[in-house]
Amino acid sequence: MQIDEENLEAYALGCGLLGGGGGGETRTAVLMAREAIREHGPIEVAGLGDLADDDFLMPCGLLGAPTVSLEKVPARDEGDRLVAAVQELTGRAVAALMCVEIGGSNGLFPLIWAVRRGLPVVDADGAGRAFPQLLQMSMHVTGVPVAPVVLTDERHNVVTLGGEITTHWAERLCRSTAVAFGGRACAAMFTMDAKQARRAAVTGSVSHALSLGELLVRHRTDPFGALSEKPGVVVLARGKIADVVRVTQGGFARGSAIVHGTGDDRGRMIRVEFQNENLVAIEDGQVVATTPTVICLLDDTTAEAVATEELQFGQRVAVVLLPCDDVWHSPEGLEVAGPRAFGYDIDVTRPAGVR
Amino acid sequence: MQIDEENLEAYALGCGLLGGGGGGETRTAVLMAREAIREHGPIEVAGLGDLADDDFLMPCGLLGAPTVSLEKVPARDEGDRLVAAVQELTGRAVAALMCVEIGGSNGLFPLIWAVRRGLPVVDADGAGRAFPQLLQMSMHVTGVPVAPVVLTDERHNVVTLGGEITTHWAERLCRSTAVAFGGRACAAMFTMDAKQARRAAVTGSVSHALSLGELLVRHRTDPFGALSEKPGVVVLARGKIADVVRVTQGGFARGSAIVHGTGDDRGRMIRVEFQNENLVAIEDGQVVATTPTVICLLDDTTAEAVATEELQFGQRVAVVLLPCDDVWHSPEGLEVAGPRAFGYDIDVTRPAGVR
Repeated sequence: MQIDEENLEAYALGCGLLGGGGGGETRTAVLMAREAIREHGPIEVAGLGDLADDDFLMPCGLLGAPTVSLEKVPARDEGDRLVAAVQELTGRAVAALMCVEIGGSNGLFPLIWAVRRGLPVVDADGAGRAFPQLLQMSMHVTGVPVAPVVLTDERHNVVTLGGEITTHWAERLCRSTAVAFGGRACAAMFTMDAKQARRAAVTGSVSHALSLGELLVRHRTDPFGALSEKPGVVVLARGKIADVVRVTQGGFARGSAIVHGTGDDRGRMIRVEFQNENLVAIEDGQVVATTPTVICLLDDTTAEAVATEELQFGQRVAVVLLPCDDVWHSPEGLEVAGPRAFGYDIDVTRPAGVR
Repeated sequence: MQIDEENLEAYALGCGLLGGGGGGETRTAVLMAREAIREHGPIEVAGLGDLADDDFLMPCGLLGAPTVSLEKVPARDEGDRLVAAVQELTGRAVAALMCVEIGGSNGLFPLIWAVRRGLPVVDADGAGRAFPQLLQMSMHVTGVPVAPVVLTDERHNVVTLGGEITTHWAERLCRSTAVAFGGRACAAMFTMDAKQARRAAVTGSVSHALSLGELLVRHRTDPFGALSEKPGVVVLARGKIADVVRVTQGGFARGSAIVHGTGDDRGRMIRVEFQNENLVAIEDGQVVATTPTVICLLDDTTAEAVATEELQFGQRVAVVLLPCDDVWHSPEGLEVAGPRAFGYDIDVTRPAGVR
């Protein structure tokens, strides 16, 4: 499989959907990906099964507050520094890159970095969606060591985390480093062999994002009808945004949005709470969906996911729920990615229709 | 020269004086140094002239808010991790350690780390006193690259800073890492050859601290008389502390203390402002001394320097000024360590008596 100029837009749409919104950073990433494809050719996507057992994978992406990326644009060569540092630290040649998470711009940057170096990206990721923290990666849940962690920025600063560092401490140090970098850092972590990745990563993520995006492109006139026919997908309501509260705090974009139903949904009110990604949907005081289910706010006309940092009063949106990978419904997955992991003292909730 | 059980207390007194106060962290360091000497023998202090030109030196110490160390005690093996990481990053064997600054506990920890590894410490440091920031090190002023920087804590976390990092960015990232570690980090930086150090470091710092401390020990009954006979030293006033304001903020202990004169100094009022170290002394609205001159508050009975984090209402103190190394009165030195570098829009001031 390849990501080329033809299917790039569809793929980015799918990443936006799985990330609960792509936003300005995803649009920047699409432009950078198109430029990279024109210069280096299509991005090769390798199935984990096609790699040798000991092929060395570098999961990577951006971390911090995506809000910041609207002004702080990557310099393009961050991936080169990540690969160089990981190879020097481990003494191993990186065979392929992997998205730490498929959702949002993190479904795109690793592809740009890969094609620039002539490497493939694997059809897998560490979440099957997007999550705000390192603890919420399938590699952590399945016991892959987080170190060495490499962080870099557009100024050629390189920070590495090692020693006997835990994922918890890596999260804390990555966050403080991203804040010191100016709010956003490019990072590599959880390096592993392809054999390990077959067990530890969420497989098929790139092709899943592409097929979701292609579905939206094929059904431009009725995207919500097409989406609701997908097994496990629920279009909860359509309406307009009546209020948004948002702060950029400690490297996260936190807040909530209130959607007033319109049309058939007139009279309904849904509140969506987010921390970089949407975490909880509440209707009339009742929790209707929680993380780890993917909660999206899609533009009511284009069906493009609206990033939490771009939500605004008056916007017409649809609240859509997508299923997540089974790893997140395991006890270990729920411990780090269920509502209680984010400070909500509520049980996991998903409507009957969400697989 | 050696630091052994006999002269350790005097040496620590001198470090406290040059650091504008040692405090609880220095007392912890003295206990750890005594333990290390009992276990490994006296600490060897090598003159920079006695080392081969290409002997590789590792300047090191603690950074962050010293206040924190009253509760967050080092684990002893931080130095081993610093040496191991520096050797791995540079591919060179460390021949000797050096104090990043002689003042306060940073005059002691590198000695503990050195003797544990059977290495000498050099009779030099990066300041000739103590300063709160990396920019205020003679190696920065004289153009030694700061990278690689290694930071570690008592939990075996290891963070390294590299790439094309500047001292400014290293300062920013060290600070955020120290805060993430819990307020204090052990660090190595500005690694260099002995030949470079002869030009870039402040030489004779360890022996200077020891001789100052021995002077105080020899004149226990009249320490201020003995101090004021030293060329360039001024005992500004004696009195008691009438007010202290202090916050721990962004990895620094910031604040000010007001000293009301007593005895011959009755009626005088001196305000000392600090940011980890004392920076400005003001009498009746007139600036009488500023950084880079060393401004100390000494216990009026023992002549032991009182750390900024231990100043309290009612304490009897003497305000003492000590000269600093000439490097700090150079244009490059004043740019990073003069009053304007700390946000005070005033010129460098020192009483006529301070050399």
